[in-house]
Amino acid sequence: MILRIDKLQTAMPPPSDPDPVGASAVQELLGGKYGEMSTFMNYTYQSFNFRNRQGARPFYDLLASIAAEEFGHIELVSTAINTMLTGPAEGKPGELGDLGGVKGVRNTQHFIAGGAGALVQDSNAKPWNGDYVFSSGDLIEDLTHNFFLETGARNNKLKVYEMVDHPAARALTGYLLVRGGVHQIAYARAIENLTGANLMKMFPSPRIPTDKIPECQPHIKRGEHRKLYRFSPEDFQEIAAVFNGPHPETGEDLIIAEEIAPEGAPPYDLPPQEAVFAPGPDPQMLADVSAKLRSAAGLPKKPTGTVANDSNGKGIAGRVKEAVS
Amino acid sequence: MILRIDKLQTAMPPPSDPDPVGASAVQELLGGKYGEMSTFMNYTYQSFNFRNRQGARPFYDLLASIAAEEFGHIELVSTAINTMLTGPAEGKPGELGDLGGVKGVRNTQHFIAGGAGALVQDSNAKPWNGDYVFSSGDLIEDLTHNFFLETGARNNKLKVYEMVDHPAARALTGYLLVRGGVHQIAYARAIENLTGANLMKMFPSPRIPTDKIPECQPHIKRGEHRKLYRFSPEDFQEIAAVFNGPHPETGEDLIIAEEIAPEGAPPYDLPPQEAVFAPGPDPQMLADVSAKLRSAAGLPKKPTGTVANDSNGKGIAGRVKEAVS
Amino acid sequence: MILRIDKLQTAMPPPSDPDPVGASAVQELLGGKYGEMSTFMNYTYQSFNFRNRQGARPFYDLLASIAAEEFGHIELVSTAINTMLTGPAEGKPGELGDLGGVKGVRNTQHFIAGGAGALVQDSNAKPWNGDYVFSSGDLIEDLTHNFFLETGARNNKLKVYEMVDHPAARALTGYLLVRGGVHQIAYARAIENLTGANLMKMFPSPRIPTDKIPECQPHIKRGEHRKLYRFSPEDFQEIAAVFNGPHPETGEDLIIAEEIAPEGAPPYDLPPQEAVFAPGPDPQMLADVSAKLRSAAGLPKKPTGTVANDSNGKGIAGRVKEAVS
Amino acid sequence: MILRIDKLQTAMPPPSDPDPVGASAVQELLGGKYGEMSTFMNYTYQSFNFRNRQGARPFYDLLASIAAEEFGHIELVSTAINTMLTGPAEGKPGELGDLGGVKGVRNTQHFIAGGAGALVQDSNAKPWNGDYVFSSGDLIEDLTHNFFLETGARNNKLKVYEMVDHPAARALTGYLLVRGGVHQIAYARAIENLTGANLMKMFPSPRIPTDKIPECQPHIKRGEHRKLYRFSPEDFQEIAAVFNGPHPETGEDLIIAEEIAPEGAPPYDLPPQEAVFAPGPDPQMLADVSAKLRSAAGLPKKPTGTVANDSNGKGIAGRVKEAVS
Amino acid sequence: MILRIDKLQTAMPPPSDPDPVGASAVQELLGGKYGEMSTFMNYTYQSFNFRNRQGARPFYDLLASIAAEEFGHIELVSTAINTMLTGPAEGKPGELGDLGGVKGVRNTQHFIAGGAGALVQDSNAKPWNGDYVFSSGDLIEDLTHNFFLETGARNNKLKVYEMVDHPAARALTGYLLVRGGVHQIAYARAIENLTGANLMKMFPSPRIPTDKIPECQPHIKRGEHRKLYRFSPEDFQEIAAVFNGPHPETGEDLIIAEEIAPEGAPPYDLPPQEAVFAPGPDPQMLADVSAKLRSAAGLPKKPTGTVANDSNGKGIAGRVKEAVS
Amino acid sequence: MILRIDKLQTAMPPPSDPDPVGASAVQELLGGKYGEMSTFMNYTYQSFNFRNRQGARPFYDLLASIAAEEFGHIELVSTAINTMLTGPAEGKPGELGDLGGVKGVRNTQHFIAGGAGALVQDSNAKPWNGDYVFSSGDLIEDLTHNFFLETGARNNKLKVYEMVDHPAARALTGYLLVRGGVHQIAYARAIENLTGANLMKMFPSPRIPTDKIPECQPHIKRGEHRKLYRFSPEDFQEIAAVFNGPHPETGEDLIIAEEIAPEGAPPYDLPPQEAVFAPGPDPQMLADVSAKLRSAAGLPKKPTGTVANDSNGKGIAGRVKEAVS
Repeated sequence: MILRIDKLQTAMPPPSDPDPVGASAVQELLGGKYGEMSTFMNYTYQSFNFRNRQGARPFYDLLASIAAEEFGHIELVSTAINTMLTGPAEGKPGELGDLGGVKGVRNTQHFIAGGAGALVQDSNAKPWNGDYVFSSGDLIEDLTHNFFLETGARNNKLKVYEMVDHPAARALTGYLLVRGGVHQIAYARAIENLTGANLMKMFPSPRIPTDKIPECQPHIKRGEHRKLYRFSPEDFQEIAAVFNGPHPETGEDLIIAEEIAPEGAPPYDLPPQEAVFAPGPDPQMLADVSAKLRSAAGLPKKPTGTVANDSNGKGIAGRVKEAVS
Repeated sequence: MILRIDKLQTAMPPPSDPDPVGASAVQELLGGKYGEMSTFMNYTYQSFNFRNRQGARPFYDLLASIAAEEFGHIELVSTAINTMLTGPAEGKPGELGDLGGVKGVRNTQHFIAGGAGALVQDSNAKPWNGDYVFSSGDLIEDLTHNFFLETGARNNKLKVYEMVDHPAARALTGYLLVRGGVHQIAYARAIENLTGANLMKMFPSPRIPTDKIPECQPHIKRGEHRKLYRFSPEDFQEIAAVFNGPHPETGEDLIIAEEIAPEGAPPYDLPPQEAVFAPGPDPQMLADVSAKLRSAAGLPKKPTGTVANDSNGKGIAGRVKEAVS
Repeated sequence: MILRIDKLQTAMPPPSDPDPVGASAVQELLGGKYGEMSTFMNYTYQSFNFRNRQGARPFYDLLASIAAEEFGHIELVSTAINTMLTGPAEGKPGELGDLGGVKGVRNTQHFIAGGAGALVQDSNAKPWNGDYVFSSGDLIEDLTHNFFLETGARNNKLKVYEMVDHPAARALTGYLLVRGGVHQIAYARAIENLTGANLMKMFPSPRIPTDKIPECQPHIKRGEHRKLYRFSPEDFQEIAAVFNGPHPETGEDLIIAEEIAPEGAPPYDLPPQEAVFAPGPDPQMLADVSAKLRSAAGLPKKPTGTVANDSNGKGIAGRVKEAVS
Repeated sequence: MILRIDKLQTAMPPPSDPDPVGASAVQELLGGKYGEMSTFMNYTYQSFNFRNRQGARPFYDLLASIAAEEFGHIELVSTAINTMLTGPAEGKPGELGDLGGVKGVRNTQHFIAGGAGALVQDSNAKPWNGDYVFSSGDLIEDLTHNFFLETGARNNKLKVYEMVDHPAARALTGYLLVRGGVHQIAYARAIENLTGANLMKMFPSPRIPTDKIPECQPHIKRGEHRKLYRFSPEDFQEIAAVFNGPHPETGEDLIIAEEIAPEGAPPYDLPPQEAVFAPGPDPQMLADVSAKLRSAAGLPKKPTGTVANDSNGKGIAGRVKEAVS
Repeated sequence: MILRIDKLQTAMPPPSDPDPVGASAVQELLGGKYGEMSTFMNYTYQSFNFRNRQGARPFYDLLASIAAEEFGHIELVSTAINTMLTGPAEGKPGELGDLGGVKGVRNTQHFIAGGAGALVQDSNAKPWNGDYVFSSGDLIEDLTHNFFLETGARNNKLKVYEMVDHPAARALTGYLLVRGGVHQIAYARAIENLTGANLMKMFPSPRIPTDKIPECQPHIKRGEHRKLYRFSPEDFQEIAAVFNGPHPETGEDLIIAEEIAPEGAPPYDLPPQEAVFAPGPDPQMLADVSAKLRSAAGLPKKPTGTVANDSNGKGIAGRVKEAVS
Repeated sequence: MILRIDKLQTAMPPPSDPDPVGASAVQELLGGKYGEMSTFMNYTYQSFNFRNRQGARPFYDLLASIAAEEFGHIELVSTAINTMLTGPAEGKPGELGDLGGVKGVRNTQHFIAGGAGALVQDSNAKPWNGDYVFSSGDLIEDLTHNFFLETGARNNKLKVYEMVDHPAARALTGYLLVRGGVHQIAYARAIENLTGANLMKMFPSPRIPTDKIPECQPHIKRGEHRKLYRFSPEDFQEIAAVFNGPHPETGEDLIIAEEIAPEGAPPYDLPPQEAVFAPGPDPQMLADVSAKLRSAAGLPKKPTGTVANDSNGKGIAGRVKEAVS
């Protein structure tokens, strides 16, 4: 089972100019064959289906903990998409022409089916599907798959980076290129340990110069390119048995983080988009009901959640007003 | 982001007589339109796409925390399927006829594509897909969807209960019928708070007599039918603002659990299935490599993970041997 | 637009021994690429998309009226499937083992997703989809497609006839082979009129000896093999301009029916299947509510609908009781 | 079975400036998960699969008659799409560049696969599929689904209204928002009758102010927002037992129409699009053949069908000429 | 089995101005329901599944040899697409904005999933699938299907011709319209021989004036419109038994080519696209490795393959340099 | 382009006891994600999309020639399936019960949609689709994919071997395990040459003991496990530059075959299946027409094709008679 922490694994920028066309490209990183739904679900099901876990515990722990990190990745990609979709649907509820500006975008379902929100689709609007999950049961084969999956994932991330220059997309791809690289190394190390093949020689794969991509640098400086987290209060101690030795590109030591997860950052509370009724045509009504319910339940007046754009000292109504103006 | 705890939300029985045909029916509860992949992913994406969270915090918290519980449900369904598939592939690796006994089962990919493991498919072997996720952005509408989704989910659980009498399937459906009911109430309560419609009158929906189903009783006795967990170390405090009042069927108070998650139970470490190379044709080799890696990393000799069938006092080899015999 | 008449185009037998495996084969005639959903939807959309209707009215009328008949065909196939699925789910609601007898059937969704009812799927449980609709806008090309579609449809009907000997399946295929043949002739005649190619020489296509199939004979005797109906109170008068001349197999005249539609037959009111909650776990409750509502609305005490198995002189409760026992 | 009437349920405007990009958005209302194919097919199959109809006749009648109305809705959406696609393919058959103007549209299959005609797809060109049909057999559950389905459908209609300002799209969404609302109320009333939950409090759902949308007003004025038709010459008398009481938004009485169906309006006969061979590269040839066939069959010289743009006193050739110029 | 010849069936122009939007339309001819994947795979599987080949050898030979030609067609369509995609991704590997110019194209996967290369999809980015293959086993029926399939294929080719004026698209459609016509005649002749129906009267179908399309003329002049090749060193001699008589449009004799296949033309060696790493971010490295491997294997220094743009007298490095500049 | 040779790459056994359930399992090797359609199409499209071929000729040649071999593999799998489906449909055309024996098989479309013939589907009846093709343009990445694809393909072949003991399935898997291994080595060697990683250490992957599988031995004895063919009259000379060095399992030299393709074996001419009209309900009619056409075209009286079961000295009629009896 899981516990959820209401934070993103890395900070994401606030909304700026909307970019719905760019958002449709970013969808590849969410619902594409090599997107984060695939990495999340592949490792998750491989861990569920893992037989004789005690006999191969270091490998089980590796799969299970990387799977946990990937949840954070689908959250980040969704955040980027939502951020890029913020703006075009700020119009009045129910007015002709409100969405006229996005009639020609690549993925109209962002606004027709969704409320200016992420979809579980790829960049061509094809839904992600369970056929993308590979779980043969054979450990070496699953690891071979995972190494290849991360290769494909890095390819797609690079291309989205090259294609979309919205700040949210850049922050996203800069971070994911670094973290995906760590997972790729982890799987390669696991194969090395089991077969003796020196896969470290294949890095970088694809030949992406992460050291030259500006958006990767802050993460590399923090050592995020050579560190694995357990993502568990107590479990998955044995990843250290697999993830060690020198980084194939920099030669630095691969390490296990002391903290169980990255510190992370609160999400930006994205403003309502009233033309698409997100979270409704009248956000103030929702705020009023929420305030009443909170009060009846003996909760503090101020919302207990933490968001990046919390404006202390203002009441809910004020913040809502601010957000929607 | 999430943390992962290497435990199941409820105890599951060890493997007994295999039931691959039953397992193919249980797949509906994993990858069906109304299966747990759908509940997990719907609430997860609705929480990712939630705008103006501070303005409607109790509802955001509700979605986010129930989403977290649903991860445990895909884990449980997978566990049941894996348990039911244990046995038929215990033969020698690479021998003609090894899988002859499962040539006629309903879902041959359990053994051809997988290693006697769960697939992300429904009971007719159709992959789950992202089209099953509804996230309109409109809070009332999403909640209406979720109430209906839980209705459909309970329908399917009941029918699988009626259809499959394998102990793992019974333990699974007994638990899920109870917990799914709690989520259904939670969404109905949320709608009531926002619209004034008294949805409590619709319960039970469908008209399932959980109080007469023996496998539900232990959970009901423990109060699992009226309790919501936050599933977070610190977040999602405001679910209490929505989930309260009398249980629509029993009249008892709906409550928020003091503990952040159920205590849970360690999973049974399922034995290798060598004919399908799970986790390989030679589990002992994997155990040997693991032992060496563990030792090199300064980890304890004994695997650090906890499983239901841990046989203290026996070495790894002994346990592996035991498992495969 | 359409009007609906609550009758089947031909009489269907009452439930007898259930045949859920046979029902899964019959699904090919509903949701298969060459099933009745395809014929219904192809001609419907071709008529919707028909440009310059006045300029080519006889052909528009032909497409529109055959489309209308095809609705009756999806109704008949569904009826056959429902009839064949009657029985296995007559058990008590919510009891373990109720559906044990159908755990191994080919299409478990008949009972898990549905209530012993038809699905919009083919014989391998693949959903019908809009990709099966061909509507090029080019009249000759659409007619060529339709001639081929009916060829494929007759092929499938014959094979289902050969495969499934349940009385409902036999009644169905016997009727559809005859009526499908009429549509095939109609499209061939239309092509002949537009191109001069003597397609009558291609009949029968496939070389199905309908005159030797016992279940086809009653319909042939009634002339159903050479008659087209307008299926409209006033419209589609011009089908007579295309559908005329000798029948390619028998030499008899092709004719337009004087009546606008076949007389048809009332459907058999299929009994509840309580184990799958169809139409609910407690049909009597539904009957009671219905009686009250009917009375409040000033409607007759006895249901106004006509069904094949109406048992005059018994009250609703009696009939329900009879049906469920 | 059905009878078909060659009229639209409401009048639609003639072609004006083409809007192929808008047409691709309108497709969501045809083949989307919450489009009219879904409403039509859901209620149709629920009526086919309805067990013990006599015992719950008012509810069967409700489903069956609403299903019949929905056929008219797929016809209307198709009409709107065809109208919006009229123009770009009026060029000469077979000339390079004819379709150059629509090379970049969102859905190229409108012109490559189709003849400037509607497709059975959603706004992202995904085909509609049978997986969108829910038919559990359980009456309350099916009604709950239908209430939710109409909620989703209204959401999509509103957004298409906000996005596309072509006159055909506005006429379409104005009408469908009103009629969809009636169906939503009908299903809610049915649930109320069966469970006691006061779903009327949930209206409008979503919170769409139809009373403020200009294109809805003519229909509201005619009472179309509170009236259900039987859509059958003789059947479905018992819908009055369910559809009654006050309208949840206006308080007016819900009523059953005296006429069996709306009066409707003749469709506009859309002009040929010769570049895509619709209905062929040479419409005059089709008109000539049709005239000959009509004459040979003893039919009147003038086409018997009625269209909105009938130009009395002109021969076929004249009308064709007019249409294509 | 097959042998492969590294030549195209007809010469294709070198890259000129890129046209990624046009390329997405051309995809319909590759992966569409009526694209070349469908013709290739339909005839291939019909030949694989052909029973009693000796008894109906002329027809088997016909299917088998046309299938072989169709491989060349998927190669040609892919070539056209690759040619049209050449240019936009010539930027530096890994630079922000490199692909900014194609962010808004219709099919972003051309650059995100692929390396400016063809995809197995249609013009709306839907993957080709095996459901498009019809193989009933019944010879007459399969031939009827094939005649219709070629009709649909010619429709799509014409429309792509009208839509896309890129030189590669024009060369492609000009050639395919001619060759597809030959296959259509072949299947019609086969049906004539088996049934007596004079399908020659249906030509051209659709009514495409290939004699007026400039891009078709060179091929017609060479007689490619009335000639069938065996596409086999020794087999398929009996196609002459079916493919003979007068051409339905020109009256010329249909003939079997003396040569076993068209002479063909070497493909243009398309330049690297470094921004998408095709064939890598550093083509010179690949050239260096290749030179070394070639030398170690005792192969000539100069690549042994023949391409249209071979620049004799320049070393590999020179050619690579030229290609990438 | 290709030439086709009317022979199988290896001899396959004649029909014996039918095994339709086994045939549905074998479908995984045809249309599964890791089946031969995938290997064939992946390498084919990677070769079509290969940029700067002259600069990396040895690798282009490798992909192109292996692609050619894979055509032979889809042919072999289809042959096995057709062989296993021979028998159940030998009944009289159009008789009730003819196909009763296969009503319960796993894939009814083998008989309903097909004529006891192979389908382009996997073992769960899901159609193969173009989404299974990976073609990133990046050579190293494509090779990494291919190495993994062959790993998955070998996994599936082994499992089908273990599951299905029909002689045709055994002959098939015995051969494919050997040849697939060669391709896997070829791709691994290519990666080694480009990166320096010693992938030979990963063999066998999965750990399949081909040297212990009896059905593999004849092929290993003939050296088929270490030999690559060019599959082209003149092209693809440079595969020798990549495929060389010691075999990773046996240490023998990897070699390029002197002959351009395996000698192969004529296919067995499978008998008609009249109940499914394959190749028609009356094979003698087809034989008569064929004889007439052959004679009119000046072809020899005896069919020119070669099949494994050619019965010299008997006329066509005799052979047909023999086949159908």
